[in-house]
Amino acid sequence: MKTHTLLMPLDMHLHLRDGVMLENVAPLTAYSFSGGIIMPNLVPPVNTLEDVKAYRARIMAAVPNDFFEPYMTLFYRNYDKAFLQSVADDITAIKLYPAGITTNSEGGVSSFDIEEMRETLEVMSELEIPLCVHGETDGFVMDREAEFMSIYELLAKNFPKLKIIMEHITTKAAVEMLDKYENLYATITVHHLLLTLDDVVGGMMKPHLFCKPIAKRPEDLDALLGVALNAHPKVMFGSDSAPHPQHKKESCGCAAGVFTAPIALQLLCEIFEQYNKLENLQDFISDNAQRIYGICPEFKEITLEKRPFVVPEHYGSVVPMYAGEVINWAIASVD
Amino acid sequence: MKTHTLLMPLDMHLHLRDGVMLENVAPLTAYSFSGGIIMPNLVPPVNTLEDVKAYRARIMAAVPNDFFEPYMTLFYRNYDKAFLQSVADDITAIKLYPAGITTNSEGGVSSFDIEEMRETLEVMSELEIPLCVHGETDGFVMDREAEFMSIYELLAKNFPKLKIIMEHITTKAAVEMLDKYENLYATITVHHLLLTLDDVVGGMMKPHLFCKPIAKRPEDLDALLGVALNAHPKVMFGSDSAPHPQHKKESCGCAAGVFTAPIALQLLCEIFEQYNKLENLQDFISDNAQRIYGICPEFKEITLEKRPFVVPEHYGSVVPMYAGEVINWAIASVD
Repeated sequence: MKTHTLLMPLDMHLHLRDGVMLENVAPLTAYSFSGGIIMPNLVPPVNTLEDVKAYRARIMAAVPNDFFEPYMTLFYRNYDKAFLQSVADDITAIKLYPAGITTNSEGGVSSFDIEEMRETLEVMSELEIPLCVHGETDGFVMDREAEFMSIYELLAKNFPKLKIIMEHITTKAAVEMLDKYENLYATITVHHLLLTLDDVVGGMMKPHLFCKPIAKRPEDLDALLGVALNAHPKVMFGSDSAPHPQHKKESCGCAAGVFTAPIALQLLCEIFEQYNKLENLQDFISDNAQRIYGICPEFKEITLEKRPFVVPEHYGSVVPMYAGEVINWAIASVD
Repeated sequence: MKTHTLLMPLDMHLHLRDGVMLENVAPLTAYSFSGGIIMPNLVPPVNTLEDVKAYRARIMAAVPNDFFEPYMTLFYRNYDKAFLQSVADDITAIKLYPAGITTNSEGGVSSFDIEEMRETLEVMSELEIPLCVHGETDGFVMDREAEFMSIYELLAKNFPKLKIIMEHITTKAAVEMLDKYENLYATITVHHLLLTLDDVVGGMMKPHLFCKPIAKRPEDLDALLGVALNAHPKVMFGSDSAPHPQHKKESCGCAAGVFTAPIALQLLCEIFEQYNKLENLQDFISDNAQRIYGICPEFKEITLEKRPFVVPEHYGSVVPMYAGEVINWAIASVD
């Protein structure tokens, strides 16, 4: 049987939620990943040192039997230097949301006034705290990410020493930005390496494939595959795995988010193998992230094997991507 | 109170389904419309004279107390002259579906070979039977209608005496075709005068606003409003009102179709009033269709008044567009 081994997989964009949902989903990621960048868009958002410490403790309590490092983040606001210095040791990044752009982002940034943001972003540059950005405007749904490129440029030019991560990129426009500024990086989800808008609304409408940013056009998918499969050094895997209870997905107003955490590695093997690029998956799944973030995850070795695997219909209250469907790789062992 | 009166409203693209659903939805249209072009995509499709007569009888039985004319259609296949002559008196149009493009269209046209279609389309021209077309390719969901324009051109050029109705157009590209060929006409739904893709998947995902063709970009909406509001003489109202039971809309694979029949006139008054074009609604709702199709519907006078109206949550098993929301016009009387 064909197998493939990955070392220290990292999920550089992960929603673990809180409470019962946290207890349900955190072990699924902790089982096969060495660590993950934990999104701070709880209600209320994570924006104090106490919040960070308490949320980290709740995550660790939810995964008692695994070696798993939750790389904590703060919800971006304009913070002063003293505060940033006080939290720097406890966070790995700060996540910026434009206000109201996705789930629980109401307290985000409502205007990109560089002078108002300058102190925060300069101190982050000094302290080497990366800025993770949900890069969408409030424009037409297919244009939101492309329209945000001018804001990435503004940030990249004004803060050349700030590492800026374009989160969950979905467009050719974002891929093209990667090589334009030295300090721009990106995460890509597994579902955005598989889907276009066609899969979401081209046949039946599929609520479990509905996410923000929404999957885009075929040429966008090709551009994303181009950098992921070829181990572009500035591109990292970030699942954006975003669990919602089933009733919030299958109703007259469906929440945005695709749940992929427990099948991400399997799907990535399938995609990379399909294009004969399995040898590049290690860079995408861990090595690039280690270098970009300067992190050293605990050792974990995951062996996957090529055999049919039926995706469970549910993980607790959450329906995963491809629920009930057969995928072609499965996890064989975790060491 | 502000009122507006419409004479002989016609719905030139209507799905009445069959059985219990027919009995549920047909009275809702018959109440406020003088007649409608009845889509033939039943299972199996309507494609014999007996089918047409029997379906017409079932429709009439479902609306015993109303003056309502179901303008019957056949499901397009390549028919011979003798057959078309035998059905000409019992049908108003023939509806062409590309194979598999929407609900119950599996038996449609799989390749547009003009020579194979020539006999049918020439006889239809002679007999003055309009061809109604669902104009979408099987391409990327946002491009399907625009890609179909070359097929409209092929049909319009090869059969200059055939009246070709571009059904439920959703794009600027289709609007621009209208004036390019004398024999091209169009229907527009009320939901495509209200929605863009943003409304369907830009915030929450809205299964009750999901239809085929899918709502497109803001510039497409503007182009559609441009011709509808200004009473373009080749443009008619066709609701494409497409009822599905609630459980087929709110599930992990949602069927395409927006149910608007009982609120279409109210919404149209609201839209046309908003743009100060109420005086043009009569052309859009009836007069253009009468002239294009050469039909003379029975007299019906509908008076609407401007007052808040809460759209019911359900009509039987069907959830309408804007269920539970307030719209600003209501039907005051039907004579």
